[in-house]
Amino acid sequence: MIEKEIKSKSEKVFPNGKDLGGASQNILIIGAGLCGSLLALRLGQRGYNVAVYEMRPDLRKVDISAGRSINLAFSDRGNKAMKLVGIDEKVNQLCIPMHGRMIHDANGNTFQSNYSGRDHEYINSISRGGLNALLLDEAEQHKNVSIYFNKKCTSVDFEKTTARFTDYRTKEEFIEDADIIIATDGAGSAMRKSYYLGKKFLFSFSQSYLSHGYKELSILPKPNGGYKIHKNALHIWPRKSFMLIALPNLDGSFTVTLFLSYDDGEYNFNNLTDEKIVLEFFQKEFPDALALMPNLTDDFFENPTAPLGTIKCSPWHYKGNTLLMGDAAHAIVPFYGQGMNASFEDIVEFDAVLNKHKGDWETVFQEYEKSRKKDTDAIADLAIDNFHEMKDHVANPIFQEKRKIEMALEKHFPKEYASKYSLVTFNEDIGYREAMLRGRAQDKAILNMLSDGVISPSDDIQLILDKVKNETEAILEDDRIAGLR
Amino acid sequence: MIEKEIKSKSEKVFPNGKDLGGASQNILIIGAGLCGSLLALRLGQRGYNVAVYEMRPDLRKVDISAGRSINLAFSDRGNKAMKLVGIDEKVNQLCIPMHGRMIHDANGNTFQSNYSGRDHEYINSISRGGLNALLLDEAEQHKNVSIYFNKKCTSVDFEKTTARFTDYRTKEEFIEDADIIIATDGAGSAMRKSYYLGKKFLFSFSQSYLSHGYKELSILPKPNGGYKIHKNALHIWPRKSFMLIALPNLDGSFTVTLFLSYDDGEYNFNNLTDEKIVLEFFQKEFPDALALMPNLTDDFFENPTAPLGTIKCSPWHYKGNTLLMGDAAHAIVPFYGQGMNASFEDIVEFDAVLNKHKGDWETVFQEYEKSRKKDTDAIADLAIDNFHEMKDHVANPIFQEKRKIEMALEKHFPKEYASKYSLVTFNEDIGYREAMLRGRAQDKAILNMLSDGVISPSDDIQLILDKVKNETEAILEDDRIAGLR
Repeated sequence: MIEKEIKSKSEKVFPNGKDLGGASQNILIIGAGLCGSLLALRLGQRGYNVAVYEMRPDLRKVDISAGRSINLAFSDRGNKAMKLVGIDEKVNQLCIPMHGRMIHDANGNTFQSNYSGRDHEYINSISRGGLNALLLDEAEQHKNVSIYFNKKCTSVDFEKTTARFTDYRTKEEFIEDADIIIATDGAGSAMRKSYYLGKKFLFSFSQSYLSHGYKELSILPKPNGGYKIHKNALHIWPRKSFMLIALPNLDGSFTVTLFLSYDDGEYNFNNLTDEKIVLEFFQKEFPDALALMPNLTDDFFENPTAPLGTIKCSPWHYKGNTLLMGDAAHAIVPFYGQGMNASFEDIVEFDAVLNKHKGDWETVFQEYEKSRKKDTDAIADLAIDNFHEMKDHVANPIFQEKRKIEMALEKHFPKEYASKYSLVTFNEDIGYREAMLRGRAQDKAILNMLSDGVISPSDDIQLILDKVKNETEAILEDDRIAGLR
Repeated sequence: MIEKEIKSKSEKVFPNGKDLGGASQNILIIGAGLCGSLLALRLGQRGYNVAVYEMRPDLRKVDISAGRSINLAFSDRGNKAMKLVGIDEKVNQLCIPMHGRMIHDANGNTFQSNYSGRDHEYINSISRGGLNALLLDEAEQHKNVSIYFNKKCTSVDFEKTTARFTDYRTKEEFIEDADIIIATDGAGSAMRKSYYLGKKFLFSFSQSYLSHGYKELSILPKPNGGYKIHKNALHIWPRKSFMLIALPNLDGSFTVTLFLSYDDGEYNFNNLTDEKIVLEFFQKEFPDALALMPNLTDDFFENPTAPLGTIKCSPWHYKGNTLLMGDAAHAIVPFYGQGMNASFEDIVEFDAVLNKHKGDWETVFQEYEKSRKKDTDAIADLAIDNFHEMKDHVANPIFQEKRKIEMALEKHFPKEYASKYSLVTFNEDIGYREAMLRGRAQDKAILNMLSDGVISPSDDIQLILDKVKNETEAILEDDRIAGLR
């Protein structure tokens, strides 16, 4: 194994010589994905000397997705971070609003279920690559920020605050030193692995996989470049034990995702092994979608099947030297459309703690984890709830009645009522945990009152609001007493 | 690295040549602790050709505890397994009944809180070493069972069904082959590590540590060999954020355990670094216990501080070749006194599945995990709940009122009412998960009705029973509707 000398902190970490002087500390960021590039931008704005090492090539120069660009759901918590760094208007140019779920039932009927009863509340489809490129451009405008590509982190020595890298092109191995290392290297984080394997402290860690995997497919644009199905919605084909979804892209296409069990059921990823059976499956379960996807079997066999995992861990930091952020600390399944938003919110929370305790990194890291982890644990659990809701409950009558009541409550009482979905998605000043507790209690109240005939969609809406509020408070209070809190 | 040839299945796995013929399969068990030795005994009784490899020396020949033997809580689920293998009467000789918790408050007052309102329901203190020795003796009486000590498993090749070992004395490395490998090698399982590191299949895994660690101490017998405090109770000194407990041994001593935070609070494991501060801590918080422990500081600095971890994982098996059981699959914290009992219950469950699907190991392993994992997940969560209950709630007035009501209900209606503690501990025919769901709903019902003045300990007991039953059903039904199950 060939290793270069460890570079000195003052000289070599930031090869372009961008040290702004004694007051500025050298921060090494591992990973220039969405979270890492936003972090680099913000820390650059704050005057730190920032070096970012990314294992992939520069996505602005090389088409690394090797196919259609993946899109993501972008909403208010993410946008709060864009406002913090002052690029919300530029990001807005990349967004396609989605006002609700467009449900495609087994008979080919469609109906739209809006995300909110308030017109200004909607989510957006955004290109991962486009947004990442913008963040890299913005970060690089700061002369105290440098980004290096094709450098894969293989481990971090968190006691020495050094990281080991391999250059993909030269195959050279080298070690970088810094005052602070922040790993934003995603669900497979090399630094988190070093925490786990190092056994230098008690590291609580979980990786948890759903029984389902996913595969990306596509609906191509019309010959004239238009959208084959309604542009401004998140399309869902719920089929109880599996589902298909589609999000629009700016070029008129949709990125389609199939969520399906690896092993269970008549059709699963393990037995969809040839064109005939894939077509049979789609013809039987998604005939309307199949009609839009002449390219189905090509996509199906070219694109990988990927697992759906949740990662939780603690502590996120070691002393005041190294810190995990974004998916590296808390990867979640995609069903609440909050993965990117949660990582962006990390930066907002981190920035606020930095304002309070600047200069004392150990306290910054401790306070950040203390205030933040309860919320990222909550969104992880909410995302798994939504997996079941999306494939199953959206087509369930009592669930649909609940949604109707909630839409009416949000429309009539825009300041007094927010559904769980709204609390999570559109109320960026409420933490995920509080949104989860209140949202779950509201759901329980409405479902039980509907089931018991205590409320009905035809009741006076003010009466419904009062009953829902009272029952929600009673549920929260009962839980509080039972927990002896 | 020196390696011997892989031994052939028929000849060398079981060096004593105990193959009983073609119908008998070779089963390799890794670990001869409580779970592994019971499994060896049961599989020996069933006629399998069993070889057990244990990393430690034979505890019947060497005093490996290097101090006082550790004791454990033994109760009905564990005893069901002892009945299965026909040694319950021998085990009974090793037991010291504990009828309840003896609470020692901060002022030195004591009061006993029984585990059940039914006189025949109590738990037992038992020596880990004594019980393990009995199980080894019983297993070795079967000529188709062989046990090898000082052989540490370092990894398992689950695709080839082979395990690699190091002999502690000769330092020799060797590989053993078998038809089936079952790992009962505890919380640090080598085979589980091979599952995790192998990345051959999606392996969900969590290790989760409490903020507290523990340290074993002791109360020595009186000079005449008698017990210094009441023999037939589990003693607790609850102090909200930490606690001390003591369980009796047959020799008149008590094994005492301090549960304390590593970092938080005025006194913690990180700052109890010299005799003076340890004595100051005990003098302030546990003066009555200190008076019984002239040997305190010796014990404190001789014995290690150990972490409190929960392990969950899935799948427990790879195809029909290898299987994790006991702590290797589901290590839990000790606060429900169910760790050993849960591992023993594993054997009962496994044996029942084996009766159904004998000969088809893959189905046996799948069915076993399917029926068992929900229950071991539940006892893991219940054990963490009890951590908070024991150090805090047992001294809480509303909790004490609930316990009084439950004791009265169990006494008056022995066949109609069982508390959560009874459901978990004394109702071995109800799974842990059902015990958890029903027990938590009952607790919530009683605590809320007490808090709201709907019931009071002075009410007619039949009236209380009716209200508790109705409210418990209502809570379970509300949860069912909210979960849309």
